Amino acid sequence: MRTLAVVGGGVIGLSAAWRAAVAGFTVTLFDPAVGSGSSWVAGGMLAPLSEGWPGEDAALEFGAASLVRWPKFAADLREITGTDVFVADQTLTVALDAADAADLRTIADFVNAHDLPGLTAKDISVPPGESAGLRLLDRAGVRAAEPSLGRGVRAGLLAVAEPAVDNRALVGALRTACAAAGVEFRAERVAALSDLPHDRVVLAAGAAAAELWPGLPVRPVKGEILRLRRRPSAPTPPTRVIRARVHGRPVYLVPRGDGIVLGATQYEVGFDSAVTVAGVRDLITDAEAVLPGIGEYEFAEAIAGARPGSPDNLPLIGYLDDRVIVAAGHGRNGILDTPVTADAVLALLTDGELPQARAADPHRFAAAAPLYPGGVR
Amino acid sequence: MRTLAVVGGGVIGLSAAWRAAVAGFTVTLFDPAVGSGSSWVAGGMLAPLSEGWPGEDAALEFGAASLVRWPKFAADLREITGTDVFVADQTLTVALDAADAADLRTIADFVNAHDLPGLTAKDISVPPGESAGLRLLDRAGVRAAEPSLGRGVRAGLLAVAEPAVDNRALVGALRTACAAAGVEFRAERVAALSDLPHDRVVLAAGAAAAELWPGLPVRPVKGEILRLRRRPSAPTPPTRVIRARVHGRPVYLVPRGDGIVLGATQYEVGFDSAVTVAGVRDLITDAEAVLPGIGEYEFAEAIAGARPGSPDNLPLIGYLDDRVIVAAGHGRNGILDTPVTADAVLALLTDGELPQARAADPHRFAAAAPLYPGGVR
Repeated sequence: MRTLAVVGGGVIGLSAAWRAAVAGFTVTLFDPAVGSGSSWVAGGMLAPLSEGWPGEDAALEFGAASLVRWPKFAADLREITGTDVFVADQTLTVALDAADAADLRTIADFVNAHDLPGLTAKDISVPPGESAGLRLLDRAGVRAAEPSLGRGVRAGLLAVAEPAVDNRALVGALRTACAAAGVEFRAERVAALSDLPHDRVVLAAGAAAAELWPGLPVRPVKGEILRLRRRPSAPTPPTRVIRARVHGRPVYLVPRGDGIVLGATQYEVGFDSAVTVAGVRDLITDAEAVLPGIGEYEFAEAIAGARPGSPDNLPLIGYLDDRVIVAAGHGRNGILDTPVTADAVLALLTDGELPQARAADPHRFAAAAPLYPGGVR
Repeated sequence: MRTLAVVGGGVIGLSAAWRAAVAGFTVTLFDPAVGSGSSWVAGGMLAPLSEGWPGEDAALEFGAASLVRWPKFAADLREITGTDVFVADQTLTVALDAADAADLRTIADFVNAHDLPGLTAKDISVPPGESAGLRLLDRAGVRAAEPSLGRGVRAGLLAVAEPAVDNRALVGALRTACAAAGVEFRAERVAALSDLPHDRVVLAAGAAAAELWPGLPVRPVKGEILRLRRRPSAPTPPTRVIRARVHGRPVYLVPRGDGIVLGATQYEVGFDSAVTVAGVRDLITDAEAVLPGIGEYEFAEAIAGARPGSPDNLPLIGYLDDRVIVAAGHGRNGILDTPVTADAVLALLTDGELPQARAADPHRFAAAAPLYPGGVR
């Protein structure tokens, strides 16, 4: 039986470990604190369509390839663990000014012109025959869909096929699934991949991946989120994920059972897990422009994480040498990209290839510069 | 040897227990979570002069009577525990508009007309012969004193004799002093004072005191504070306590070794320990008007507490019947009032009276209404 070491216990590493163990590998997962990194800080949006933009076809197609895998992935997890990780069925992006409204039309035109096979709405109010593409809403349409939003909202873009998941429930379910599949957890920091005697290694260390493979173009992109809890005096949370741009900054509100995850700031400051006063202020101020009653929510938690950024906002999934597979650099989309990444890693482990993951080839930057000094080790 | 039960382990209960044990009482202190109430949430300002206002002579004199006791009280604690609880030597109240500047003059005139015996500056840069009264500063004077303050500050009121203490260090030191003096701690909630067989009882349960003595005019006044930690990129904290009024709300910044305690909101909402989004927003927004660089600080903690409010903002210290002494209702001034309250309680326990505490007579409201139905038990 072949042995596999997975380095990193975020959702990418956990899902790769789970799938590999089920496929017959003897899997050891190394992480000093499983699930405590950016997977723990995430919002859980699955919104590749709403984040589409002309020219970024590869990102749209890669994200959509993962989105269509989510129903089966979540169903498998639920069968094993009893946990349903979904927390919302749809995503609504709103515009607060004319420029944003024009952008929503641009996104809709771009995305709806694509053929995205397999896309269906999870929401049972959208009949199977109906389009799962993006829909433009006017002011009245937004108000009808989400009455608690602010009066400054003038247009919306509804994605009926973009749900959201509870990232922490997902971490928990993946741990359970790994344990059930026989994955061995080692609460250790790996100092060098050469210390690992395993037949194969999956490097899924997120923003820290470059520490184990110098030159790998993955860098930390700091983000802060707030977790808010509903109080009796507060308006009910939106039923959908709400996304907007306020003061030029992106803001999102993801429903949770008892509240809202509010994110996310974005800074290029290296590794820095401190929540800043300015970050908290910006998130609250921006959210109030979208959901005026949010001040009545309980301020339950503020937390920062390091997204694993890549140069082109697509991840790196592929062999770095004949033993080590990288699965990192997922940026803001690690939760979304989990199912397609797990499938791609499993294909690589069994000497196959997942066509949809070609855009994530880690060697795509190599022409520009000698990016992998580690590759010669 | 006489036995004493102290109900409540905030700074008031702890200091009463400590002093009584030293004086020969066999003391048991009841609290399910010592030091976890409003004492843990406080800012630690000792500012009765800066908070003076014409007509509120009793509050000024009571507060000043405690302020002048602080040096000896802190020195005694330091001798026993090794802990120096002081974190700042002076207090600076700043004005952001003309109305506030006029108020500062009103406060200075009112306070400086009083004879406040024993008032001295802790700060060694203020010579012993020099006045320890309030001093008005113009814009340049404020800037010279605290260069990191915002350009909107137009005047200041400097209190050279008003230091601040670290409330959490104070809780810790008082616990140590109590233990050293032989106080027995019982992590229990007292259901009824009649359950206690002790010769004397000190009711120091803060905002919860009325639960044990129905009709006692002490009510919870919710407050929220933030604790901020300095980061390398952030401006140094002010050296003094900074107080201001912004958007009609009081705000204060109390230096801590590694940062700032930023307070405090004030709501009449009953018992409610949830930090709200609006409270966090208000505190940050108001603080930025005073200290523009505060956004660079780390957002280390947000916490809410219940101040024990009284009808006239003076505490209740005195016998409720021939066995039970109340020491509660200190409102925003529990830390400041700790030494004089401890002295007053000790005087009452030894059948004496502290003249300076007469204004805190718990029966002063009795003429207005039958306030103590519990008193007939």
